[in-house]
Amino acid sequence: MSKTSGKRFSIGVDYGTNSVRALVVDVDNGKELGTHVYNYPSGKAGILLDPKDPNLARQNPADYISGFLVSVAAAVKRAGKEKGFRPDRVVGIGIDTTGSTPIPVDRKGVPLAMTAKFKRNLNAHAWLWKDHTGHEEAAKITEIARKSGVPYLAKCGMTYSSEWFWSKVWHCRNVAPDVFKAAYSWVEACDFVPGYITGNTDPLKMARGVCAAGHKAMYNEEWGGLPSVSFLKKLSPDLAKLRSRLYRKALASDQVAGRLVPAVARKVGLPAGIPVAVGAFDAHYGAVGSGVKPGTLVKIIGTSTCDMMVSSLGRKLKDIPGVCGIVPGSIVPGMYGLEAGQSAVGDIFNWFVNSLCPPQYSKGDPHVNLSRAAAKLKPGESGLLALDWNNGNRTILVDPLLTGLLIGQTLHTSAPEVYRALIEATAFGALTIINRFEEYGVKVKEVVTCGGIAEKNALLMQIYADVFNRSMKISRSPQACALGAAIFGAVAGGVYNDTGSAQKRMAGVKSKVYKPNKAHARAYAELYAMYKDMHDAFGTPRFRGKLNGAMKKLIGIRDRARKG
Amino acid sequence: MSKTSGKRFSIGVDYGTNSVRALVVDVDNGKELGTHVYNYPSGKAGILLDPKDPNLARQNPADYISGFLVSVAAAVKRAGKEKGFRPDRVVGIGIDTTGSTPIPVDRKGVPLAMTAKFKRNLNAHAWLWKDHTGHEEAAKITEIARKSGVPYLAKCGMTYSSEWFWSKVWHCRNVAPDVFKAAYSWVEACDFVPGYITGNTDPLKMARGVCAAGHKAMYNEEWGGLPSVSFLKKLSPDLAKLRSRLYRKALASDQVAGRLVPAVARKVGLPAGIPVAVGAFDAHYGAVGSGVKPGTLVKIIGTSTCDMMVSSLGRKLKDIPGVCGIVPGSIVPGMYGLEAGQSAVGDIFNWFVNSLCPPQYSKGDPHVNLSRAAAKLKPGESGLLALDWNNGNRTILVDPLLTGLLIGQTLHTSAPEVYRALIEATAFGALTIINRFEEYGVKVKEVVTCGGIAEKNALLMQIYADVFNRSMKISRSPQACALGAAIFGAVAGGVYNDTGSAQKRMAGVKSKVYKPNKAHARAYAELYAMYKDMHDAFGTPRFRGKLNGAMKKLIGIRDRARKG
Repeated sequence: MSKTSGKRFSIGVDYGTNSVRALVVDVDNGKELGTHVYNYPSGKAGILLDPKDPNLARQNPADYISGFLVSVAAAVKRAGKEKGFRPDRVVGIGIDTTGSTPIPVDRKGVPLAMTAKFKRNLNAHAWLWKDHTGHEEAAKITEIARKSGVPYLAKCGMTYSSEWFWSKVWHCRNVAPDVFKAAYSWVEACDFVPGYITGNTDPLKMARGVCAAGHKAMYNEEWGGLPSVSFLKKLSPDLAKLRSRLYRKALASDQVAGRLVPAVARKVGLPAGIPVAVGAFDAHYGAVGSGVKPGTLVKIIGTSTCDMMVSSLGRKLKDIPGVCGIVPGSIVPGMYGLEAGQSAVGDIFNWFVNSLCPPQYSKGDPHVNLSRAAAKLKPGESGLLALDWNNGNRTILVDPLLTGLLIGQTLHTSAPEVYRALIEATAFGALTIINRFEEYGVKVKEVVTCGGIAEKNALLMQIYADVFNRSMKISRSPQACALGAAIFGAVAGGVYNDTGSAQKRMAGVKSKVYKPNKAHARAYAELYAMYKDMHDAFGTPRFRGKLNGAMKKLIGIRDRARKG
Repeated sequence: MSKTSGKRFSIGVDYGTNSVRALVVDVDNGKELGTHVYNYPSGKAGILLDPKDPNLARQNPADYISGFLVSVAAAVKRAGKEKGFRPDRVVGIGIDTTGSTPIPVDRKGVPLAMTAKFKRNLNAHAWLWKDHTGHEEAAKITEIARKSGVPYLAKCGMTYSSEWFWSKVWHCRNVAPDVFKAAYSWVEACDFVPGYITGNTDPLKMARGVCAAGHKAMYNEEWGGLPSVSFLKKLSPDLAKLRSRLYRKALASDQVAGRLVPAVARKVGLPAGIPVAVGAFDAHYGAVGSGVKPGTLVKIIGTSTCDMMVSSLGRKLKDIPGVCGIVPGSIVPGMYGLEAGQSAVGDIFNWFVNSLCPPQYSKGDPHVNLSRAAAKLKPGESGLLALDWNNGNRTILVDPLLTGLLIGQTLHTSAPEVYRALIEATAFGALTIINRFEEYGVKVKEVVTCGGIAEKNALLMQIYADVFNRSMKISRSPQACALGAAIFGAVAGGVYNDTGSAQKRMAGVKSKVYKPNKAHARAYAELYAMYKDMHDAFGTPRFRGKLNGAMKKLIGIRDRARKG
């Protein structure tokens, strides 16, 4: 027998906002054999929009099905060109999606959007993570939960978001009672896909992941699963009735959701019966694919960031104010999963490039031009300081109604100086998250990043290393989320006894490490103290001063002006 | 006799930073018959620079002489083409210059820079108003004056500037003792020119203007003229000795400095003996040329602004904290002259256009493009608020170490929105000056502007009207400073008994008036309250909070970073 004859493989399928990627991976070493990206055909770049309502963002669940079939079939075909790969050596499949992206389904688990009656009804489609139509419901949930003395907000930073499960479902009940009534249950996209491909779509029996349940639906084993009937009644009796048609127990991703059914297996060129892991969110799998472990913060840097950590279940973890999720098993089974993040990072740099980049830097790639000039500056040399709140603050202030700030401009301030100040601002924002973790006993020894910016922008990586005064590493795989999904495929396939063992073999970092420059770290420590003063003055309700609330006042004035 | 046979004329000569303008005016109605601009031939755009020291800015006094001869000769020649003009009908000449621009001179009043020994020595030339080499001396003067309990700072906003007379002379003594020793006396440019053309150059006998003396050299009749010997001794015994070689009495511009000497008269095509008014600064004459009177604020809007008012001498005016000059007779003889200003206005818009204007607005005239887009916005609609301190704050904080601030940016903020926020910031800064005047009993009923921006930028004018909630008018003459000089020429020539009468006939405003929009004024009142909070938090030493001093801390960090 040849040396490759014993090789085994798993498949990770990563559903993003605009497309889905399938990745075939060698379970022994994480080597990637074949991949394929499928762009969702519906709507604008895969998103169903309402020109009258900028808060609305929906998705066609049929795209998730065609996406699985096309991307997996193509990735398997591509892997077939590599030595040693054979479809019958695929031992498991893992799935991650965006979230919270709940889908209203009928008694059999069929999305209402895929029925004749509702296929043209936007409210019957998947409510994409970035749909904010339920912002009023979110505010009410926060208010009612705070008043009721229930513990539900403690694990999600004390503020419930419009992006999350109950805000969306409640909003549907309020604006589209026909859809709400027709929906026997609601299923997160990350549970829908494993259910569909394994034929386990019965809403009452299918596997539900603890990642979506714990981070977005206020599920916690400690308090008996989902929020109580009496609490949900305070929102709406209809939500209280829905509770029994959801789930009692949510599972971690080392559990098997089911096995690939023949009808699907045939279409993707795989044998039937392959185990499929319980699904979870993309950022959580990205953390696993980047090798997250206690002491390692994984930053997924894109238009926004997700900052992911795990902490041993051995000791009881305190609630961490402002950290938007603490859920046992949501990232690595057997550990607390912690999720934090910044509402805008790459989006801020893109905004600057699109709105305020002068012609001398806008030819070719403005990011490259500005970074090159900004790299020549020393920390503090511009005299500028910025806050990174152009899209609000997700962690630790949990306040979407905050805005940007730039201070220190003179008549000589240049575009690269502002660009660098914006990078520094995002670094300071990230350090605020790190410090909050550490204040509550979750130590951050190193930072591993993944995402395009981490690979492309050496200036940002060095500034982050200097500001954090910690080493910055880069996830080896440029598709860490899909790799994380493949890792859970391998665990579901029984190749490894636990996720940590699978990560050790399949995940890793690049050899390039950005180490902090001690002199720069000292300079940034001084600037960070000023950032923190500014952060508290403009963002903390406890701060007493006329400037507190200034950003909200300006938003109020703006909204009145726009209304006329 | 023809109808024009009785016409009389006066000539105003306005020395700016880069050039000098001569203007021939009909004394009956202010009609402008001929003008000529002469660019100073020395240095870079008329300024002598030191590549090693960005604070240094000097000027060749010989350029002032050639400037008078060329510009007046050409303006007279041009006027000669107009009906009724004849050189022998010129009844008076007025002169204004930049300031404080002191020139070291010998016993006969000859500038040292025009002697063989010193002509290559930068310290022997005119120390141009924007020379900041004496910033350490300025800080010491402020400190010593405050500690000594002398009243000298009360009339200049409680802070002595590096742009002013004693800072410059003292710095010369410290860095160029040879020049200081050779200088029998020091003469302001605005006194030097009238002295030269009338042949009265003896430093002890020549006419010295109260405008330069009072605003820049701490001269005040109340305390016996220049600062006392005992005070000057605390700075340096050498300055104390210099005092007796300066002047005892300074004069207002309705006084005659002397009469045109034949040698000069011949070269400019005028008869000898024409009376020449005592000189003053350009902004002060600009106010007169724009019709300044009690209740009318004249704003000279350029790269920075000068905000000029007059107030009756009938009642004793309180000192106004932060207003950089209150001098009897410095603008209109017989009234208090009040000078305030903003360190940067046009400069801020130019900075934005040069540094942060994206390509879609940079073709053609970016100011026009940005203004057109910004004009479509309602007050408050951008959600932005800015401070106008990119070049520090001259009035009312008198602090060069303040910097810009922008708050409210989102991911949708556009360049025209920022541009408008910067215009609004300068309007709020201007309103702060107006309010300070009114708090101390100097009422501002209307605002008359002059300068290129006032003529060209209707958006700015309307925003100012709305923010001030007052009418905005525009000076009729686009060269208001030179017209003001001509008005004093007419007074010196005996055409009018007082400056007010001359102004009524010779100065005026355009018919276009920008009136406040009441709804916009209300919206801006709300934004101004927030501007004021921000102003006090970042700019007022009395404000208690961590943000106070933030801009200075950033400048400190910047300067250390630049030094390495």
